[in-house]
Amino acid sequence: MTADISPLTLRQRIRSGEHTTNTSGYAAGFVQCNLVILPKDWANEFLQFCQLNPKPCPIVGMASQPGDYMLPDLGEDLDIRSDISGYRIFENGEHKHSVTDIKDYWRDDLVSFLLGCSFSFEEPLIADGLDVRNVSQNLNVPMYRTNIDCRPAGRFSGKTVVSMRPFLAADAIRAIQICSRFPSVHGAPIHLGDPSLIGINNINQPDYGDAVTIKPNEMPVFWACGVTPQAVLEEAKPPLCITHEPGCMLVTDIPNSKLSIL
Amino acid sequence: MTADISPLTLRQRIRSGEHTTNTSGYAAGFVQCNLVILPKDWANEFLQFCQLNPKPCPIVGMASQPGDYMLPDLGEDLDIRSDISGYRIFENGEHKHSVTDIKDYWRDDLVSFLLGCSFSFEEPLIADGLDVRNVSQNLNVPMYRTNIDCRPAGRFSGKTVVSMRPFLAADAIRAIQICSRFPSVHGAPIHLGDPSLIGINNINQPDYGDAVTIKPNEMPVFWACGVTPQAVLEEAKPPLCITHEPGCMLVTDIPNSKLSIL
Repeated sequence: MTADISPLTLRQRIRSGEHTTNTSGYAAGFVQCNLVILPKDWANEFLQFCQLNPKPCPIVGMASQPGDYMLPDLGEDLDIRSDISGYRIFENGEHKHSVTDIKDYWRDDLVSFLLGCSFSFEEPLIADGLDVRNVSQNLNVPMYRTNIDCRPAGRFSGKTVVSMRPFLAADAIRAIQICSRFPSVHGAPIHLGDPSLIGINNINQPDYGDAVTIKPNEMPVFWACGVTPQAVLEEAKPPLCITHEPGCMLVTDIPNSKLSIL
Repeated sequence: MTADISPLTLRQRIRSGEHTTNTSGYAAGFVQCNLVILPKDWANEFLQFCQLNPKPCPIVGMASQPGDYMLPDLGEDLDIRSDISGYRIFENGEHKHSVTDIKDYWRDDLVSFLLGCSFSFEEPLIADGLDVRNVSQNLNVPMYRTNIDCRPAGRFSGKTVVSMRPFLAADAIRAIQICSRFPSVHGAPIHLGDPSLIGINNINQPDYGDAVTIKPNEMPVFWACGVTPQAVLEEAKPPLCITHEPGCMLVTDIPNSKLSIL
């Protein structure tokens, strides 16, 4: 049932308050997105930051004008102010409020960015028969701060955050092939093998999410992660920034397969 | 000069005895092939073996009829009996003779197979800026017997032989992407990381070729290797089998880029 629900029906249930939880496993086959909303005078620098760092910050869509809250390119009747089940309001880089609707915060100068999410590439990995551990263990994917610098843009700079999924070597090679077809949802992994080479000292203590089991003979495989822009935004401290609650994504009408370049 | 020579001119110099050495670095940009010649009553089983094991045994071309020695699909005026600088004659699985021309051995029942060679994928790796260690160290690529079974076909069976090139993780990921575009020259690697997982006990003692330097933080990356069919043929012991001398490949008129599927 949850997998079969249409994106539009799910968004309507979120808007009416009927669906209040995360969106993992809902509306299978459709792109889910990370949300970043910024005032216009911060938006251009953030757009440049995303352009320079497409692996952690792949833009799937953005509002065409400041103040636009309807996003027809991403979905039918899609209102970014109400169609996500949870929002975080950041003021000067601090998480101040968690709300289920941002109509009271909306302003004519706000620009919405929708960034790709790993749900879109986990689906073809699983369809290919690979064991995506955070899914099979029903855990949040483990995420780690690394020593890999993002390319800075204006007031935005910081280190890349990665997600990790363990695989046997042959499956890691297959995962690289599959994810290379999806550049707008983080694309190919950026590292595999020894975690210390990218500044991760304890693979069993992720900085975000849950630790997952790494079985004998498996190697950790690391993808650039959509948490990167959130960490960067907390450092840049814009006066206002609105994001989704982790796990509560924007569910679009775009089929995952549309993001495949091959 | 060596890189710029045309495949046809190089084959003519080989045929006339003017060029007697290996072909590495000659006629850059054109496909070079491994050779296997078998009597007709062994050829069908070998063809099936290649079909079942396309990564170690990728068929680039074969003679359309037993006895054919001109191979127009592979090159202009290409005579497989004289256009390779060195041949090995195997009788009952034993290397009996090394010759520079096989006209005296030719029979109406012989079938020629041309199999892809790693030269074709090393070229785009180098063009992309990767350090292919056996090339930069001017050594033969290190090759190892593994514990990975080939799929058997009739009298042909055995273990996969792999070649190894060391890379930093990010370069290994890039190499997987590039080589995935070349399925007819071994395609993507089949393993990376811990050599013992595929039965290699000492990475510094290859079974064929030369050991290369593995720098700090690099991991070994393993490709299925065209030596696999030679090892399998030595076990199967057909009464007659003719191969090229290692490094003395058939240089075809096919551009490497033609083998790219993308």
